[in-house]
Order: sequence, then C-alpha cells, then structure tokens
Amino acid sequence: MVFKVTVSSARRATRTLWLLVLVSLPVCISVCRASSPQEDSAMENIVTEKKAEESHRQDSADLLIFILLLTLTILTIWLFKHRRFRFLHETGLAMIYGLIVGVILRYGIHVPRDVSNVTLNCHFNASPATLLVNVSGKFYEYTLKGEISANEVNDVQDNEMLRKVTFDPEVFFNILLPPIIFHAGYSLKRRHFFRNMGSILAYAFLGTVISCFIIGLLMYGCVTLMKQVGQLGGDFFFTDCLFFGAIVSATDPVTVLAIFNELQVDVDLYALLFGESVLNDAVAVVLSSSIVAYQPEGDNSHTFEVMALLKSFGIFLGVFSGSFALGVATGIVTALISFFLRDFQLLETALFFLMSWSTFLLAEACGFTGVVAVLFCGITQAHYTYNNLSPESQDRTKQLFELLNFLAENFIFSYMGLTLFTFQNHVFNPMFIVGAFVALFIGRAANIYPLSFLLNLGRRNKIRSNFQHMMMFAGLRGAMTFALSIRDTATYARQMMFSTTLLVVFFTVWICGGGTTQMLSCQRIRVGVDSDQDNSISVGEGSERRSTKQESAWLFRIWYNFDHNYLKPILTHSGPPLTATLPPCCGPLARFLTSPQAFENECQLKDDDSDLILRDGDISLTYGDITVSTDASGAHTSGGLAFAGASTSDDLDRELAYGDHELVMRGTRLVLPMDDSEPDLAACVSV
Amino acid sequence: MVFKVTVSSARRATRTLWLLVLVSLPVCISVCRASSPQEDSAMENIVTEKKAEESHRQDSADLLIFILLLTLTILTIWLFKHRRFRFLHETGLAMIYGLIVGVILRYGIHVPRDVSNVTLNCHFNASPATLLVNVSGKFYEYTLKGEISANEVNDVQDNEMLRKVTFDPEVFFNILLPPIIFHAGYSLKRRHFFRNMGSILAYAFLGTVISCFIIGLLMYGCVTLMKQVGQLGGDFFFTDCLFFGAIVSATDPVTVLAIFNELQVDVDLYALLFGESVLNDAVAVVLSSSIVAYQPEGDNSHTFEVMALLKSFGIFLGVFSGSFALGVATGIVTALISFFLRDFQLLETALFFLMSWSTFLLAEACGFTGVVAVLFCGITQAHYTYNNLSPESQDRTKQLFELLNFLAENFIFSYMGLTLFTFQNHVFNPMFIVGAFVALFIGRAANIYPLSFLLNLGRRNKIRSNFQHMMMFAGLRGAMTFALSIRDTATYARQMMFSTTLLVVFFTVWICGGGTTQMLSCQRIRVGVDSDQDNSISVGEGSERRSTKQESAWLFRIWYNFDHNYLKPILTHSGPPLTATLPPCCGPLARFLTSPQAFENECQLKDDDSDLILRDGDISLTYGDITVSTDASGAHTSGGLAFAGASTSDDLDRELAYGDHELVMRGTRLVLPMDDSEPDLAACVSV
Repeated sequence: MVFKVTVSSARRATRTLWLLVLVSLPVCISVCRASSPQEDSAMENIVTEKKAEESHRQDSADLLIFILLLTLTILTIWLFKHRRFRFLHETGLAMIYGLIVGVILRYGIHVPRDVSNVTLNCHFNASPATLLVNVSGKFYEYTLKGEISANEVNDVQDNEMLRKVTFDPEVFFNILLPPIIFHAGYSLKRRHFFRNMGSILAYAFLGTVISCFIIGLLMYGCVTLMKQVGQLGGDFFFTDCLFFGAIVSATDPVTVLAIFNELQVDVDLYALLFGESVLNDAVAVVLSSSIVAYQPEGDNSHTFEVMALLKSFGIFLGVFSGSFALGVATGIVTALISFFLRDFQLLETALFFLMSWSTFLLAEACGFTGVVAVLFCGITQAHYTYNNLSPESQDRTKQLFELLNFLAENFIFSYMGLTLFTFQNHVFNPMFIVGAFVALFIGRAANIYPLSFLLNLGRRNKIRSNFQHMMMFAGLRGAMTFALSIRDTATYARQMMFSTTLLVVFFTVWICGGGTTQMLSCQRIRVGVDSDQDNSISVGEGSERRSTKQESAWLFRIWYNFDHNYLKPILTHSGPPLTATLPPCCGPLARFLTSPQAFENECQLKDDDSDLILRDGDISLTYGDITVSTDASGAHTSGGLAFAGASTSDDLDRELAYGDHELVMRGTRLVLPMDDSEPDLAACVSV
Repeated sequence: MVFKVTVSSARRATRTLWLLVLVSLPVCISVCRASSPQEDSAMENIVTEKKAEESHRQDSADLLIFILLLTLTILTIWLFKHRRFRFLHETGLAMIYGLIVGVILRYGIHVPRDVSNVTLNCHFNASPATLLVNVSGKFYEYTLKGEISANEVNDVQDNEMLRKVTFDPEVFFNILLPPIIFHAGYSLKRRHFFRNMGSILAYAFLGTVISCFIIGLLMYGCVTLMKQVGQLGGDFFFTDCLFFGAIVSATDPVTVLAIFNELQVDVDLYALLFGESVLNDAVAVVLSSSIVAYQPEGDNSHTFEVMALLKSFGIFLGVFSGSFALGVATGIVTALISFFLRDFQLLETALFFLMSWSTFLLAEACGFTGVVAVLFCGITQAHYTYNNLSPESQDRTKQLFELLNFLAENFIFSYMGLTLFTFQNHVFNPMFIVGAFVALFIGRAANIYPLSFLLNLGRRNKIRSNFQHMMMFAGLRGAMTFALSIRDTATYARQMMFSTTLLVVFFTVWICGGGTTQMLSCQRIRVGVDSDQDNSISVGEGSERRSTKQESAWLFRIWYNFDHNYLKPILTHSGPPLTATLPPCCGPLARFLTSPQAFENECQLKDDDSDLILRDGDISLTYGDITVSTDASGAHTSGGLAFAGASTSDDLDRELAYGDHELVMRGTRLVLPMDDSEPDLAACVSV
C-alpha cells in the first residue's frame, strides 16, 4: 500500500472520520481513546496479527477519505455543470473539499501519541535499506522510509493522524501523473497543434527556459534581500532559486482549457495554450532534474563552474532526447504490433494500455524521465497506433485514459487542498511569497510578450495582443508544479518552496481559472467557433491565409512528406499504399510492406491530420513548386458539396474520390511521377 | 510501491533481465558485479539519494518484467485466438510464461549478497510498527514489513533478486481480486442465473461447506498418517486441514467458461457453473476467515470446543451478512445517485467506479470482507444502477471492468507461475500432495452428485448426469484459491498448503481447462446453443418446461414481484411507473417517486431480466393463479413476427405494444387491478 503505515489503534477515530466525510459536515469531534491494555507476552503472535489487521483497516479508511472526497467532487461538479456554473472548475472544487477535510484532520481530531513508536539509539555509520531487528529471538524486517530531520522526531510521534493521510510523494510521479500526461499527449488536437508547431515549440522550450531563469534571478534577489533583513531561517542557494523557477514554469491550464472547450474558443489560441502547457511540463521536469544535478566539484558546491554547467546542460539534452526517443520508440512498436492485432478489442486495448505503461517503467528503469517518455509515447500512439485500432478500441482507449486522467487529476488537486493543513513542515514567509508572485508574473510576461513579438515577425497569422494577454492570464500552475515541489521537502529551502507553490496553485486555479470567462469577454476573444466552421472561413480569407499556412508549416514539410508517404503506410493501415509512394524500382519491397487494408482504404483515405498542411484542395497554393491545377474547392465537385464538403476533410476526400485524375493526386498527395498503371489504384478509382 | 524494496545496485542485472524477457529467450546469464567502493562520509547525503534512485529504478524494472510478461501473453493469446486453438487458455499460458521467467530468475541470475542489509541485535519486548533509527546523529524512519522466521534470516540476505519480485500477498486481496470479483458480479448472466437460483445457492453454500469439511477430514486422515510414517516436519492441526478444505473449495472455472462462451454451450449449464463459482468464492473467503478465527479458550488452542465453534459460526454469519448488506447498500446508493446523474458520461463512469471501490474499502474498514461486499455490489449495480446509466456509460463501465478483470487475472496467473520457483519456503510433500488431489476429487464429487440428486427431486428440468459430470470436471481452482493460500505462509502447515495449492491450480487449469472441449464432446453436451434460440425451443417443449419454470422460480416469485413492482421503479428509470403498481390510495406518493422517464419508457419496457419468470407471453402458464388469457405468442401479433418476435424479449415487448389491452397487461405485468384510467399509460398505448 502506498500509505505510510504506522500501527495505532485510532480505529474509532477513523471510523468517525469517514462518517464525517460522508455527511460532509465539518463538525469537529475529538475522539479520546482509551489506551490499550498491556499485552500478555504469550499472546504476542495474535497481537501482531491484530496489529496488522488494524493497520490494514486504517489504510482502507484513509483511502476511503480520498475516494469519498472525489465522489463529493463529482456530485458537486454535476450540479455545477447542470446549472452551467463556470466560475469554479472541478479541480478548484476538489481543492476546496480537500482544504475542508484538511482542517478537520488538523484541528478536529486529536489522536494521542502512539506508544508503539520506539526510537532506537544504535549507532551505525550507514542507513541500510533493510533492517532485521531481533526482538527477543524473533526477527522482524523493517524497510527504510526516509530520513527525518531531528526537529521532526517529536512530530512523528505526535501527529500520527496527519502522517497517515500523507502519501509518499513518489506516488504522484509514478502513479498519478503518468495517466494525466499520457492523456494530454493522446488527445492533442493534432491538426491545429501541427499548424502552430513552431510557435508552440518556441513557447515551450525557449519560453520555459526564459521563465525559469528570470524567476530564478528575481527570487535570488528576493532571497538576498531577505537574508539582509534577517528574514531567512536557513540556506537558500542560487540553484534552489533556479529550481523554484523551473518547477513553477510548468503551466497547467486545465481549468482554462475546460472552459475553452465548452465555449468553443478560437482553435489557434486553444492549440497554442494546450500545446505549450503539455510540452512545457516535459521541459520543466527535465530542467529541474538538470538543475538538481548541477554539482560543481570540490567542497563548495554552490559556486559557478563552467564544467558543471555544461554537464547539467548535457544531462538536460541527454535525458530529454533519451526520453523522447524511448517514448516514440515504444509508440512505434505498439503501432507495429497493433498493425497485426485486429479483431480482438479486449486484447488490443489491454496491449495498448500495457505498452504505454511499460514506456514509463522502461524510461524510469533506464534513468530517463518516465513522464516525458509517456508524453511522447502518447503523441506517437495518437498519430500511428490510433489508426490501426478497431473503432471500438479507439473509443475504449480514449475513454479509459479520459477516466484515468479525470480521477488522477481530481485526486491530486484534492490532495493539494488537504496538504495545506496536514503537511507539517510548512514555511510560510510573506516576503518570499510576495516575491514569488511578482517573479511569476514577470517570468510569464517575459515568456509570452517577447516571444510573441519575435514569432509575429515570422507569422502572417499574427498572434494578436488579446491572444497574448489571454495566454499571459492562462498561465495557471497545477499538478506538475505540485508533484515537482512535493517530491523533496527535506531542506528549509524546499519547504519554503513547497508552501509557496501551494499558494501559487490555489491562487492561479481559483482566481485566474475562475476569471477565464470574464477575461475572454474583456479581451473580446471570439467564442462559439466551430473548428470546422473556422476552416470554411479561412477559405474566404484567401491569399493571406494561404501563405500563413505555408510559413507555419515549413518546419514540418519535409517531415510531413516523409511521414505521410513512408511512415504512415508502413506503421498504419491508413495513408497511401507504399507502391504508390516509393519509386518504381522498390516495387517488390513496397508490395511486401503494404497491408491489404491500405489498398482497400485507399479510396477513402481516413487521415486525421490530412489537412495539417493541405486544406481545401489548395495543393498549388501550399506547395508552390508543384503546379497542379487542382484549383481550390468547388472546381470539380459533383453535387452541392462545394462548401459543405470543406466541413470535414474526410468528406472532401471521399467527394473528390469520385472525380477523375485529380483524385489520385489528392489521394497519394505529393507523389510525382504519377503511376497511372498501378492496377489497385485504378480499380479503386473505378469503384 | 508494492514491492519489497531493498536497495542493491543490481541494476545491470535487472536491465539484462527485462531485455531477456523482451526477447523471451531463456538464456542464462549470470552477471557479476563489482562491489561498490566505500563511500566518503561527506558524500553521505548524495549517496542516500542515489540509493533511493537505484531502488526506484529497480522497482520499475521489476514491475516491467510483469508488464512484459502480460504483453507476451496477450500476443500469444492473439495468435491462439486467430488459429482457434482452444487447448490452452490465456490464464494457462500466463502461468507457463510465469514459470519460464521464474526459472530464469531462480537459476539464471545470481546477485551476490547485499552488504547493506544489517541485522540489529537490540532486544525489545515488542515489535513496533515504526522504528526511528539514530544513525550518527541523523534519524531514519523504518516501517515494519513483517516477521521473518529464524531460518529465513540468511535467505533474506542471500536471495535479494527473488525477494524483489515477491509482492506483498495483500496486493492480491486488496488490488487484484476486487476488480475480478466485481466483474464476475457485474456480468452475471442474470436471466439464466435467476432461473437456476435455487440450485446455484445450494451448490455454492451447502456444496462449499460439504466440500470444505470432506476435504478437511480427509486431509486430517492423511496428515495423521504422515505423522505416523514420520513424513511430517512440523505442526499440522485439524483447523489447518479445515482451512485447506476451505481455500481449495473456491472454484474458478474461468478457462472452462471462456470455452463455454465461445462454443455457446447450454445456457443452464453455463449459469449453474458460473453462478456456483462466483458465489462459492464468497463462501470460501468467509469460511476460511471463520476457521482462522476459531480460537478455543485456554492454552491448548487446538481442541474441540462448542463455544468457540459457535463463535466461529457466528462470525461466518455476521461477516457474510454484513458484507452482503454493505455491498447491496452501496449498490443501491449508487443506483439512487445515478438516477439523477445523467447526461455526463465521464462523471457517471467515474462515480460508478469510485462507489464500487469504496464498497471494498468501507467493508475492509468495518472489518467485513471487501471481496464479498464487492461481489454483491456488482450484482446490485448490474440489477439497478446499470439501468440508470446512459448507453455510453453502460458500455464504458462494462468495458472498463472487463479490461481490469483481464489484466488482473492474467497478472495473478503469471505471478502464480513465477512464484513456483521464486517463493523460497516451498514444502513439497509427495504424500500430502497425493492426498490433496484425492481429497479434492472426493470433495468435489460429494458436492456435486448428492446435491444434484436432491435438487433433481425438486426440479422438473433435471440436471442430467452429463451436466453433473461436466460440473465435476469443471471444478478448477484459480485466483481466489491462490490469493487465500499466499496470504499467510508463516508456518510449516501453511507453506505446505501453499505449495500444494499451486500444483492443484496448475493441474486443474492445464489438464481440466485444456480438456474442456474433449469433455464436452465426450459427454455429448450440446454446443452452438444460442441463448435466444434456446428460448424458442422451450416454447416447443410445452408443458414440461412450463412447470419447470414455475418450480425453479418459486423461491423468487415474491421477491421478484416486490423488486419489479416497487424497487425497480423507485431505483431505476425502467420498470412500470409506481402509479400503476401501488394501490390507488398511495397515488400522490407514487407520482412523487416515479420519474418522468418511467412514464416515457413505459411503452418499451427494457427490462433485461423481464423474461426471468415470464416468457413468450405465457402469463397464464407461469402464474397459474392469475388467469389472463394472453395465451402464448402468436395469438395477436401483427405481421410475420410470431416466432421471430420471441427471439428477443424487447422485440416482443415492443411488438405486443402495438396490440391493444394486453399490452398493458404485459407492460406492467402482474399488476391487478388494472388502472385503465391512468392518463400516461393510455397515452402510451395510443402511440
């Protein structure tokens, strides 16, 4: 079990506790418990069993608290959704309930000191992972939980109750975050994401690094000031400041995006925000671990040293690219397996789940970052594997990870609320907190505005100033920031960071999250935009839009060609058959690698991101060098589908498929020279 | 994490390990590892961090082994399904792969003794749950893992690798079994289940108790003999024998049922086997815990004592009924909540999942048996909540638990294979093993044949002898037996039981499971029976069948009436409106309690178990006392649906709905007197 299990007979207290949660009335009851009688040594064995049983019950009851908290959150959220109340997102609500239960646990229930905790004063020169204790002839096995600072030793014995609802911080990283991050990757709205790829990468990589260093420098100034005023109670080095900068640079606008989704805000803004937040999580994780790894040689471990800096930078690059490669590799392996594994939905889904999980474990076992690997695995799965799954499995996997994401997210947020009161080493320093908020604001501004200015120089479809303000405003901090900050709370600096981070998350989720609707209307950002409707508008906008696409996609044109012509046909059942894309000399190989389905599917290409670069039949526009006269929509449509056909690319594809030669142009796209003699294609056209 | 975490730097060994599994070649590689250099005391902090990191990597790698095992199982299963190869079920295959990896771990990889394990020889008079160890001024927290017998102390230090892949036995009970059992309850084929309810209950309760005591007595004879021959190496009391009887009485014909499903074997046989195996799991769990609780007073704790026996019996009744009540109660609460919570599928599904999980936790926290509570919760959810869910959520919940069941089941079976080699305290005693197999055979026979004889006295639809042989043959032992036996392996008796149980599971799953197809054809049991086709045949069979139904259902007629007329309308959106079923004097109350949907749905009653008692419109047959002349199907059908209409009861319902008066008779069924003036009903008829 994941709990810190300590035996105590606070059973009655806990029973009362869940009853309390059940009726959700913050009534403070303090349960006084008679101390258990001294046990007979003959009954020792039974007593040990009883203890284990009690401990198990305790664990169940503790976990039940969280389950009921989540249930309560769901019920309230249902009420909110029913009444279209948008000021409080489910995560914000989960935090509030967590806070309430935290207050009850902290002030409502007093469990007296447990006599069964013993401090051993045997002196070693190491702390072994496993202890075998010889208790009057019987051996008991103990495992290391962690170090406890000297001033905590009394707390350990006093606050049993609070410690019991404290999870091992690694639970967040190893159990709760992976499904959240995977789901983010798996549900990236790919079309708009790829369209804005350049900007997203700029915000996520450059922006996060800028934000991290700006916040780090500002906090260092703040800390130096605090030291001079005498407000600082412990060490706080520059690396600590940078670490703080890294962890609070991970944005998580889950609240904002939920509202965006509901109100159907502009898809480009959505893609920018979502893409940035997904990728900067990955950047922040690797960045923070690289900062921790900054270890100059010699005794003075907090000086500046070029070698150590380079090493940290190398670690950043190595870990990031390693995790990236691993995630993509597992995704591709899954795609290849699922290429053959059709028809058995349960097996498909189970395999998908297991392979995605093993990405995480593999990355962790290799010393990379599991969360980052899982993110890129999710993106790869969505891009390739998803196309190979049966429609039922597509639904199943989507729904499964949606559920896991929902549960994990709300669990983390309610735990955040709880921990504000139950965590025992909070260091709330007003100066540091104010400094942090100011630094956060400046750091976010230094990320968004200069980068937007630079990006706008290259973009024709400018990121307008109201979009920039919105992005600035939507820089919420959430699950990732929390998980990074709770991971290590051993030192004074880390404790102060943790407490401040909690406040930052609360403030941004409640205030910024709650004010999204107001901000949207204040910034006059279009709502109610259907993503497809948006496309048909773009057709009307004409030439300006065209070159925009050309620009924003230039980074990926080569990749896209390669992916569409070779990777997709090899890894999935969609895409054009390889026989059409490979040069004629590779005929036999191409025929071997192309699945029969690819030939069958060819007439009705179902490529989700087919309009990633191409849109509305305007091949000649996007690819200026290929001059084919498939001149925009409406030229050779059969029936009244001229504009309606543009509503979904599938329709358009199918529509055009009943044309003549141009069909093949579109179907196999960018494939020159045309191989008209290809029998399967010809058969397909004639259908 | 659930692993027994012990720090060692066997990282390279583990990396090799998963690579091994990945290519699934049982190549034996022994990795020799240079011992790590003595650490500088100044670097102690970093070393501790490094250790924790290594330990985490190790855990990830260990878990990865299992994930890859499961992946391998899935891939092979896919191959088997693809080739319609039925001799080996996925669970049997999972065991084989587990065995292979177990052999590799045991004999292939030698990890040298870890120096960081230290045996403390401080003498206490108790074993505290938490130890604080003062290591040269720093405090480290240790938690109790459990007792280790003196002769194991060396093993602990020698066989790191094997201990690392050993899960806490409670994981099976608290994490893996609940979804399996819930899924069984949730997917009980209710119509046929209820039709054979009496027989199923007889087999599950009486049969399991008979089997438990027969096996217990036989094993006691065997053990006494062993003692006299000098084959017994430790204590083995009568209660131990009974305990063994209880745990091996839980049948789990998952393999058999999979084949039944595929071959569409007779639905009654399926219902009997499935119902028995689901319920006898619950009986066996409670029975075994009652036997453990048998504690006569005084020092000699293994004498016969009436009071202790009565107390054990009381515990059995108390725990069983408590768990039952709790499961049903949570199910009903969920039904009531989901009654209102429509339209938001994700919330519905999440709530369903959380409430079902909290049943388990609540039962465990209250001292009842979570697994039993979860079973009855599942049945209740299927009966009530399921009807309130939106169609999407119905699919989602079914698929979710199907997946969880699949993963958990295969995990348990592959772990079973693994543990045959990695468990370090096996006691294989040939005499005990032979005795156990004989006892198992006799115990199963004493369950099936006498009970079938007695039941056949009351049943008109006899349980034929070939069915009896098949039930005898299908008494496989599986996940539940394993989980019960691994839970406590502290004493010699328990270790011998565990080893024997493993062999029993292997034998029954491979031999009996693999021979199912042969047994079916050998016993000439009909295959390819469509459950609906079966119904239409029953129409042809005429009078004999009619009274069968009447008899087999007599236990539940009262309950069914109550459930159908009052509970279903109150708890779900299906069933007749209360206004039709309650006496006219309760009109206002009835109108208050009936949901608008109930009125709407009324015309097309979608009651899955509507033909639980009634079938083919033969009201007058089943309910001899209610003489309404809705005489059988075909009398007033419109169109050619006379017999085709019988193919699904929904169709028949809808079909009949276009008739006249009799519609209402069928729609609200068993409701006398008719309230023809009811406006909604009238409106419904006229539709």
